[in-house]
Amino acid sequence: MNGADRLCDVLLANGVDVCFANPGTSEMHFVAALDRKPELRCILGLFEGVVTGAADGYARMAEKPAATLLHTGPGLANGLANIHNAKRARTPMINIVGDHATYHLQYDAPLTSDIESLARPMSHWVGRAQTAGDVRQMVEQAYLAACTTPGIATMILPGDAAWNSLEPEEVTPVRLPAPEPAASEQLLKAAAALRSGRRAALMIGGALTRGKPLEMAGRIAQTLGIDLFVQRSGRNAGGAGRVAPKPIPYRVDSAIDALKHLDVVVLCGATEPVGFFAYPGKPSTMLPPGCEIIALAEQGQDLATTITHLADELGVRPDAPVATPPLTTPNLPMPTGRLTADTVSTIIAKLLPENAIVCDEAITSGGAFHALAPGAEPHEVLPLMGGAIGIGTPLAAGAAIACPDRKVIGLQADGSAMYTIQGLWTQARENLDVVTVVYSNRAYAILQDEMKNVGVNHFGRNASRMLNLDEPALDWLSLARSFGVDAGRAETTEELARLFTGALRNRGPFLIEAVI
Amino acid sequence: MNGADRLCDVLLANGVDVCFANPGTSEMHFVAALDRKPELRCILGLFEGVVTGAADGYARMAEKPAATLLHTGPGLANGLANIHNAKRARTPMINIVGDHATYHLQYDAPLTSDIESLARPMSHWVGRAQTAGDVRQMVEQAYLAACTTPGIATMILPGDAAWNSLEPEEVTPVRLPAPEPAASEQLLKAAAALRSGRRAALMIGGALTRGKPLEMAGRIAQTLGIDLFVQRSGRNAGGAGRVAPKPIPYRVDSAIDALKHLDVVVLCGATEPVGFFAYPGKPSTMLPPGCEIIALAEQGQDLATTITHLADELGVRPDAPVATPPLTTPNLPMPTGRLTADTVSTIIAKLLPENAIVCDEAITSGGAFHALAPGAEPHEVLPLMGGAIGIGTPLAAGAAIACPDRKVIGLQADGSAMYTIQGLWTQARENLDVVTVVYSNRAYAILQDEMKNVGVNHFGRNASRMLNLDEPALDWLSLARSFGVDAGRAETTEELARLFTGALRNRGPFLIEAVI
Repeated sequence: MNGADRLCDVLLANGVDVCFANPGTSEMHFVAALDRKPELRCILGLFEGVVTGAADGYARMAEKPAATLLHTGPGLANGLANIHNAKRARTPMINIVGDHATYHLQYDAPLTSDIESLARPMSHWVGRAQTAGDVRQMVEQAYLAACTTPGIATMILPGDAAWNSLEPEEVTPVRLPAPEPAASEQLLKAAAALRSGRRAALMIGGALTRGKPLEMAGRIAQTLGIDLFVQRSGRNAGGAGRVAPKPIPYRVDSAIDALKHLDVVVLCGATEPVGFFAYPGKPSTMLPPGCEIIALAEQGQDLATTITHLADELGVRPDAPVATPPLTTPNLPMPTGRLTADTVSTIIAKLLPENAIVCDEAITSGGAFHALAPGAEPHEVLPLMGGAIGIGTPLAAGAAIACPDRKVIGLQADGSAMYTIQGLWTQARENLDVVTVVYSNRAYAILQDEMKNVGVNHFGRNASRMLNLDEPALDWLSLARSFGVDAGRAETTEELARLFTGALRNRGPFLIEAVI
Repeated sequence: MNGADRLCDVLLANGVDVCFANPGTSEMHFVAALDRKPELRCILGLFEGVVTGAADGYARMAEKPAATLLHTGPGLANGLANIHNAKRARTPMINIVGDHATYHLQYDAPLTSDIESLARPMSHWVGRAQTAGDVRQMVEQAYLAACTTPGIATMILPGDAAWNSLEPEEVTPVRLPAPEPAASEQLLKAAAALRSGRRAALMIGGALTRGKPLEMAGRIAQTLGIDLFVQRSGRNAGGAGRVAPKPIPYRVDSAIDALKHLDVVVLCGATEPVGFFAYPGKPSTMLPPGCEIIALAEQGQDLATTITHLADELGVRPDAPVATPPLTTPNLPMPTGRLTADTVSTIIAKLLPENAIVCDEAITSGGAFHALAPGAEPHEVLPLMGGAIGIGTPLAAGAAIACPDRKVIGLQADGSAMYTIQGLWTQARENLDVVTVVYSNRAYAILQDEMKNVGVNHFGRNASRMLNLDEPALDWLSLARSFGVDAGRAETTEELARLFTGALRNRGPFLIEAVI
């Protein structure tokens, strides 16, 4: 056996049994080792952004890391935007980046680059095996970092560390330390603030965005009569029968307005809300001046236990009733006529199947879906966490691989879909149960709005050419079918309802161009 | 006026009048400034790898830098693989990367990342404007670095440096220092070695790969009866009537064999030949042990003057006749029957129009083209210099923008085409005169070979799934047409000849799937 075999053994011993991959020559020994381990499922992406976006979607749903296999610095670079998104989602991920053999680096062959420098900005942990004997310890460290941060571990594997021989040895699972809940001092401080009578909010994120912890957060807020805000995390429960915390609006003016009444905010798995971008003359932070911020616990801590402890401290009974929204969207009247972004969203919310996974890269177009979502069938939303567009089709692919029994719905803007459109091929190859709805507005609509924000209302040729996606319009049906994904086009609400209903009834990937 | 206006003024004052772009919110003031400068042509790519690959193709042919506009760290990351290729091609390029406003960075908003760390591995120069007042000096430094290195300058432009006001001022062109030819000491040493009677070779690269300097290098080698080897550069003359130096083979064993007889090598614009990858038990360097290496001049120096000085020193008359290959490929018999990689290449070499620009990302499939190229119509070849696949469609787009009166031929492998397939849309939008021939073998054929090199001859499921691109096969006609590029499919030599002839006769982008 060699270093690459050891790498596979450590991954498998720790339950990492899916590897999203786009290999190159320096990874041939790793590919050969994977070929000797059929129990480690390898999934090809035709571009590295697909590989890393799919690993993110998989790990968000599987709640364990996937491995990725990337080819040297440029291969890693191609995957970085979606690694960035995964980092912001705090998704556990183990990237294995092949590199030249250690002794070959000094010759500066064409594919040589400073992989560490590329990896660090988007990784919580970066390591390099120098020898085959290093591999076990390195992968174990990477696994530990990925699971406990939780976040991104990037391990560089030189060719000779992969191909050099090793004696067989037994590989045992890494012991993961249990995360700590909030310290009692912080707990007392948070509890005192929330019952102080001041205008208070509990702001949640991370693992509090679903399941029992979400319910407990809702129970606390409802019992105390305070606001419950959510910073969306990698995976967010939604729909009827589930606590619906208030989102923090994307737009600076709206966010400031939504939070302006607060005297004190307790953060639990969330961070202080800041503007997604800076704008001339507008503040960077969204809370009102003088608002006290109490950081109760952050991601990486045991948030579920923390929220239970907070309830205890506040005297909120764990069986106290908690109000949740009723199921309403199925009874909404079906919109009629030509499609708009809002009617597309309404139809999706109305027809959404129970337990769907909604991968959201609708950007400007999905607002009405999120407004209606609390009244839809119970579901989960996987948002774009890092703002790097191009996550949609791979995120959906990864989620579908982790959850083959759940329907995955991709809400997809057309501009952002183009960054990793090759993800459709992986959906086809693996026959994944994903319905992608493209809000087709033939523009970077968000940027057209942002231009107006900077005072430009009439676009000349250069701005038009940079912000419009027409001339030529993308032919979404041909595009999807070229990758092996069947597709349909809807210009009216009736057509969309018919296509979406049909796609939900069938199994396998389908794409709908919703022309708005 | 603001910092972004100043940036545009400096670019224009220095003749940088094309900007390949994929903007985001933090670049809105830059987009607005570009919109006030219609003489600066903005070209949208639907993915940043298209933007940077097109900038590379443009600058190789225009012999001046293009600007790129990229959105924060992830936008830069998406463009890095082709920046890597451009760096290895020593292409002048000025990347403008938008970032958050300086005061906003501390809040770690979702799109925040360490842009310098991402930029450095693929840049010769990295700078950041801190204020609007910095912008002029920074862009001038970037331009100077791009032109004189020559290579990659990456300038980070925070939002407030773009939007803050400036007094108008006159902007004048940057004075570029003239590059120096080789020092006379090195010249004497090189000349002595070449006429020593030892088995010698002149190994050229950079600007010596075309025009009068190539002819002079050929004249020297022929007069002295020594070998002339070429390390292909960003732009290489080929075809009948042009000196045809010997290429250094890609495969380690072949390269070693081709060079094994040499006692001394003079490098002029080239570097010591090394293996593209390392392999167990094979050497990293390709020259025989004991071979003397004389580094006469490197890229960034005045290679054309150096080669003239070398001829003088050697007493090679500048008007001495130089043998060049005759035009032969038009008289080759047209191949018949089903297509193979070699017959595709033969047909292209046979029908190649005069003065064509050949963008080569054929990987394993293009060998026969390069073997026949010396007998084809005069042309230039733009190769993949950094080994990061995914340059083809954007490189062709950029070359076509720089040279609207020349036919651009893309030799394209199917696997590598998928990385930046969105480049077809830019070809369609700008109505570029590009014929792309896809060598469609539905596999990463080079990796299948490399697996055999590491001793794996029978692939299991994992290796098959990672190295084959079938299941499903890509539908190239639908794919090209979905981006607005008309296309045809050839399974036989007759079909390919007909399609290729038709595409050469018409103007505008066309794609041919050559099924091999």
